[in-house]
Amino acid sequence: MSTETLIEPPLQDADALIADMGGRARAAAKIMATAPTAKKAEGLRAAAAQLRGQADAILDANARDMTAGEANGLTSAMLDRLRLDAGRLGGIADAVEAIAALPDPVGAEVDRAERPNGLVLRRVRVPLGVIGIIYESRPNVTADAAALGLMSGNAVILRGGSEAVRSNRAIHAALAAGLSEAGLPAEAVQLVPTQDRAAVGALLRAQGLVDIIIPRGGKGLVARVQDEARVPVLAHLDGICHTYIDAAADPDTAVALAVNAKMRRTGICGATETILIDRAYAAPRAIVDALVAAGCEVRGDTDIAALSPHVTPASATDWDCEYLDAIVSIAAVDGVAGALAHIDAHSSRHTDAIVTEDAAAADRFLAEVDSAIVMHNASTQFADGGEFGLGAEIGIATGRLHARGPVALEGLTTYKWLVHGTGQTRP
Amino acid sequence: MSTETLIEPPLQDADALIADMGGRARAAAKIMATAPTAKKAEGLRAAAAQLRGQADAILDANARDMTAGEANGLTSAMLDRLRLDAGRLGGIADAVEAIAALPDPVGAEVDRAERPNGLVLRRVRVPLGVIGIIYESRPNVTADAAALGLMSGNAVILRGGSEAVRSNRAIHAALAAGLSEAGLPAEAVQLVPTQDRAAVGALLRAQGLVDIIIPRGGKGLVARVQDEARVPVLAHLDGICHTYIDAAADPDTAVALAVNAKMRRTGICGATETILIDRAYAAPRAIVDALVAAGCEVRGDTDIAALSPHVTPASATDWDCEYLDAIVSIAAVDGVAGALAHIDAHSSRHTDAIVTEDAAAADRFLAEVDSAIVMHNASTQFADGGEFGLGAEIGIATGRLHARGPVALEGLTTYKWLVHGTGQTRP
Repeated sequence: MSTETLIEPPLQDADALIADMGGRARAAAKIMATAPTAKKAEGLRAAAAQLRGQADAILDANARDMTAGEANGLTSAMLDRLRLDAGRLGGIADAVEAIAALPDPVGAEVDRAERPNGLVLRRVRVPLGVIGIIYESRPNVTADAAALGLMSGNAVILRGGSEAVRSNRAIHAALAAGLSEAGLPAEAVQLVPTQDRAAVGALLRAQGLVDIIIPRGGKGLVARVQDEARVPVLAHLDGICHTYIDAAADPDTAVALAVNAKMRRTGICGATETILIDRAYAAPRAIVDALVAAGCEVRGDTDIAALSPHVTPASATDWDCEYLDAIVSIAAVDGVAGALAHIDAHSSRHTDAIVTEDAAAADRFLAEVDSAIVMHNASTQFADGGEFGLGAEIGIATGRLHARGPVALEGLTTYKWLVHGTGQTRP
Repeated sequence: MSTETLIEPPLQDADALIADMGGRARAAAKIMATAPTAKKAEGLRAAAAQLRGQADAILDANARDMTAGEANGLTSAMLDRLRLDAGRLGGIADAVEAIAALPDPVGAEVDRAERPNGLVLRRVRVPLGVIGIIYESRPNVTADAAALGLMSGNAVILRGGSEAVRSNRAIHAALAAGLSEAGLPAEAVQLVPTQDRAAVGALLRAQGLVDIIIPRGGKGLVARVQDEARVPVLAHLDGICHTYIDAAADPDTAVALAVNAKMRRTGICGATETILIDRAYAAPRAIVDALVAAGCEVRGDTDIAALSPHVTPASATDWDCEYLDAIVSIAAVDGVAGALAHIDAHSSRHTDAIVTEDAAAADRFLAEVDSAIVMHNASTQFADGGEFGLGAEIGIATGRLHARGPVALEGLTTYKWLVHGTGQTRP
């Protein structure tokens, strides 16, 4: 296999390219919007079968991406994210089948009311329309973001990273073939055919053509998308999550939750980055020791640093830092009010937790913390669509509008009002 | 009373002004977010009492706006929108009290689930945060938009039109005094203190400070806001609403709905602008005649023009025109499919209706029309928050995200996830 060069014709007009794709996506979205659940599920199962049937072509394309990536000096972490093998590809097909089995939100009645004049009003869920997904090197996103978008009755326009371009094209071809086989429009899933970044800019500006943009990837990508987009964006930039240990916390629970919330997996957005300990809590040292014993670097304020020689002093920037690593910052605070003030100043409003046996303290914390997810006596690592029973997730949103927290099928829908009359005129 | 000049210091830094107001609004929003329903209602009732108690000052301020407006050559329609009298001001106070009596969406449980590991997940409604309201010459908007925003637990930043500046300041002072009297933060309702348009630009760009912008006014205002805003906007630009008369329509119902939908009030966004008549419908002439008899100018395509000498030929632009007047365009179409194609091409996705006794035709129309409101055998003039039982409305949204159709208290909230655990760690 040679390290081929990827030849692309120069992009003449990014807006025209996206307008054309968007128009075709809109037409496909109209068909997807009223496709029965069974038909959408059939399309996804056919897509999964195509992923399995075209495994050789997909793995070959991925091998060429890997060769190019090595030649281009990708880090081993990036190469690992890029790499597919038979097992990983089987997992991707399994995930598509699992999404096909999820309950369909489309058509569900949100509420219903009858007016004194006899009009019956119903709000029912309908798809958002056309979803743009912009992602980086993981080729599995091509399949699972597409599957979530399609199962919720939308059309999707995918724009993956240049490192994975051959893999993404091969996976996309399998998905499109599956949809066609099931009698659904292949154009409900389109892949931007160029790696020219001007196409991303055009997608971000495509108001009226694209209903929502979902960026999947690192902070640089999300920040660029949030900054440039005129189309609404569903995403989170940071996951600066807090676990607050209240004076009334059970000591064993406190240690277990602190260690799990920080250390179970340090690289996920729901990992706790800062632990707040009530000055009135009896056993702060045990928390520090358990974290140190688990291999965590502890950076503390003056009170915390005094507890153990293993604590290094935290600097001012530590309180706004998403380490995504085995590092934690710990601050002493004065009760729930102190925790609320710290969280208000430093949280990225993703997930924050309180550990306490005091119901009143928990109620106040849950009521006043203004984050997408607020937890009592649970690990912030549960912040995940699968753990929330949504079956999957397309991401976690920290914005305030439309959808907050883990977003899966329902978050990819909106509603319309249906009014059933018998000839009523308005007086 | 003299026609005074309104002296304003020049605006040095619009972004700094809005940042300062936004920061104070955010602090007030935190208090409003957890204020009990009874306290918010008390604040609004006190505000209504202040509006009544300060009637002389408000009516005097309004008289000065009227004098200035006459001197500046405002049209009689604009002067009528601007004018307050004791009756109108009483109506404004009544509306604030009515909003105080509405059910509070904040804290309502959207859904609840228990996971196999014992975690209990609840989604509960919380306020959006800080709402910016940009409006034109009607001073009543100052009170009713503020009341809706406050009752749903938000802080509001108001920016009214320059013609109404004195009236708005007087009404705002009454509202702020009412909040203070009830022990709520007066800064939960702020009025932009300058008419410099740079302040509007700063408000539209105030991401992170303002959570949503709601423009209330004519198409020029809404278009400018939608074009410039980086903050999400809830609004509708056009109300190009359709009533489709199916072959299976009851003729009396068809005439009654066509006339009511078009002519009850021609200036509202839910007024029908285009009537589509199935070529297979038996009595199209009666619809045309009834509209003509009601004083409506009828512009028709070739088929419709052949029905009556009172029909003038429609031009291509008529199908995309929001007349807001006693003018209607009528097109003949081939059944539901023809109506769907016309609506897809020309509807502003506000409200569209079908008139038919054929349940299958109605079902198809309701399923396939992609508008915020879709009606069967009812007048499009019912498109209104009050008529929908919402108690009021801050506007009607034709965007697809967050809230669609009439928006009242619930549309000014979002949700957060509350997770109740007993020490669960994630495996």
